[in-house]
Amino acid sequence: MPSKRAYVPFVSVEHMMGLVHHIGIEQVLTDLAAEIEADFRRWPLFDKMPRVASHSDVGVIELMPTSDGETYGFKYVNGHPKNTAEGLQTVTAFGLLAEVDSGYPTLLSEMTLLTALRTAATSAMAAKHLAPKGARTMAMIGNGAQSEFQCLAFKAVCGIDTVRLYDIDTSATTRCARNLAAKGLTVVECRSGQEAMEGAQIITTCTADKQYATILTDNMVGSGVHINAIGGDCPGKTELHRDILLRSSIFVEYPPQTRVEGEIQQLEHDHAVTELWQVIEGKASGRTDDRQITLFDSVGFAIEDFSALRYIAKAAKGTPFFTQLDMIADPDDPRDLFGMFQRAKPENH
Amino acid sequence: MPSKRAYVPFVSVEHMMGLVHHIGIEQVLTDLAAEIEADFRRWPLFDKMPRVASHSDVGVIELMPTSDGETYGFKYVNGHPKNTAEGLQTVTAFGLLAEVDSGYPTLLSEMTLLTALRTAATSAMAAKHLAPKGARTMAMIGNGAQSEFQCLAFKAVCGIDTVRLYDIDTSATTRCARNLAAKGLTVVECRSGQEAMEGAQIITTCTADKQYATILTDNMVGSGVHINAIGGDCPGKTELHRDILLRSSIFVEYPPQTRVEGEIQQLEHDHAVTELWQVIEGKASGRTDDRQITLFDSVGFAIEDFSALRYIAKAAKGTPFFTQLDMIADPDDPRDLFGMFQRAKPENH
Repeated sequence: MPSKRAYVPFVSVEHMMGLVHHIGIEQVLTDLAAEIEADFRRWPLFDKMPRVASHSDVGVIELMPTSDGETYGFKYVNGHPKNTAEGLQTVTAFGLLAEVDSGYPTLLSEMTLLTALRTAATSAMAAKHLAPKGARTMAMIGNGAQSEFQCLAFKAVCGIDTVRLYDIDTSATTRCARNLAAKGLTVVECRSGQEAMEGAQIITTCTADKQYATILTDNMVGSGVHINAIGGDCPGKTELHRDILLRSSIFVEYPPQTRVEGEIQQLEHDHAVTELWQVIEGKASGRTDDRQITLFDSVGFAIEDFSALRYIAKAAKGTPFFTQLDMIADPDDPRDLFGMFQRAKPENH
Repeated sequence: MPSKRAYVPFVSVEHMMGLVHHIGIEQVLTDLAAEIEADFRRWPLFDKMPRVASHSDVGVIELMPTSDGETYGFKYVNGHPKNTAEGLQTVTAFGLLAEVDSGYPTLLSEMTLLTALRTAATSAMAAKHLAPKGARTMAMIGNGAQSEFQCLAFKAVCGIDTVRLYDIDTSATTRCARNLAAKGLTVVECRSGQEAMEGAQIITTCTADKQYATILTDNMVGSGVHINAIGGDCPGKTELHRDILLRSSIFVEYPPQTRVEGEIQQLEHDHAVTELWQVIEGKASGRTDDRQITLFDSVGFAIEDFSALRYIAKAAKGTPFFTQLDMIADPDDPRDLFGMFQRAKPENH
């Protein structure tokens, strides 16, 4: 029999869905926002590396590692906008935690669903610090796979009670509205981005084209709003007109990565931006006046995945929502890997 | 029910042992050497990136990605020399293949055992091109977890019939000799490195200390031999005295990585080395005379893992040596990730 260390707890897609329903999705989003915020507060402690990307003509496959000195984590994630047309997910992901001290893995988890949850939780956590006080209405522009998670996170974490949906594909808006029915949100289906933004204090953009796009033009954005820009997240893929950026106070996760992948790839490489963790820690200003446009230029960073994986490891413990994978060869005598192999020979049983 | 694409074939440790016994270990080593050689022949085609290492005081965790434009692969691997004393493996690993076109994973596999196999196969494949013709005796210095695999690979691929074992820990030598009994090799247990090298045309060094060590000194190495240096594979970890390097023709996998991690970290950064793939492809000379010392300064490269994973994917097909992991969220409508989650709610069943 393999030793206990040979097994790695594995959270499948089925388990992840079961676990999130077991806890309740709004509670999970609230908990994730708290975990991510707690890790942003100890930002300088993390080993931060830009993600390792392998680009092709049609997409990208990335590895996103980080470590807090005790726990190591990484995520595998792809981005293939053309997948949707083939009936596949644009983004699929899985992730792993390991002990820094031994290098032994301690958790393997699906992360397609978990990435959607952590992205929404990060957005809402940032908005909690940056959006105008008392914001109740959010425009949700781009109603793809991430949109419902964003809406529920802003409800749970920021107290949003109304979402105004718009997508160039009206069937996406219809689906999003249907999925959000009876969730305690007033849902308004809109026919243009302009209409979606009427009365919204928070504007979330989350579209998937891998090209420079202009989802928002300058004249559409009034003063005092908070923009949560999710979709501009790789080189050549942006959503906002440059003029909006020039009018905004810009907050980012990790500047070396955001300058390459975020909306700010449109700006000079030394354009002033503020690191979100510094706002949370009180080391930098967030929103300072009512007319200010705050912009969270979010590209997704490894620490958010790390926080999410650690949360899932804790939450799954003692539940039926994981199995044990025989993934690590762990012979009784560590120098005797060959002996372990030898003893597994069928005729030796 | 999840779609077919939601499942990722998974080869566990138990499966890997079963599969290798099913095929036969010498056949596997021969096949792996051929697969790796075939991929070295198309070396320029690969996306080559230095591994992404996360170092701590006691070890390292690394991600090793590569791609041939059709298939993407990466390995997770740790290196913790102090693990042995705690009853754990120095090196554990697992790996993944994915489709470049969609980003969807196609194989997850244990790689602790597979890394031992591919390292041995790579060593033997290099020796086939570099060692003196008619070599029959190998000195095996360092009798840890990798040693039996090395001996069997050199038997299967290079026709070695005698191995001379030495380790500072005599119990390691005893174990290695016991494991190699009745394998068709003459096994000689030696009391010193010097004794092990008597009459050997090939010298393999494979020790695990994370420090500058001198397993071989200059006066121990006669002319005409081939040195297969496995253990010097990370910054600060070398096995050979610098003077040996200066007398040798040095062959490496990927110079940018080997100059940081291999024996040649002891030399000037522009010291002449030859890339092994160029020898295999006939673009550079290998062994040119009988008195030449050839040295394969091997650190392990991502392409070797890629070759090994592709071999396992093919070999496991149609056998009982894998299971299907529910690792990828794959909703019917790819934009409806939330709907898939919603429908999984227990009360909806």
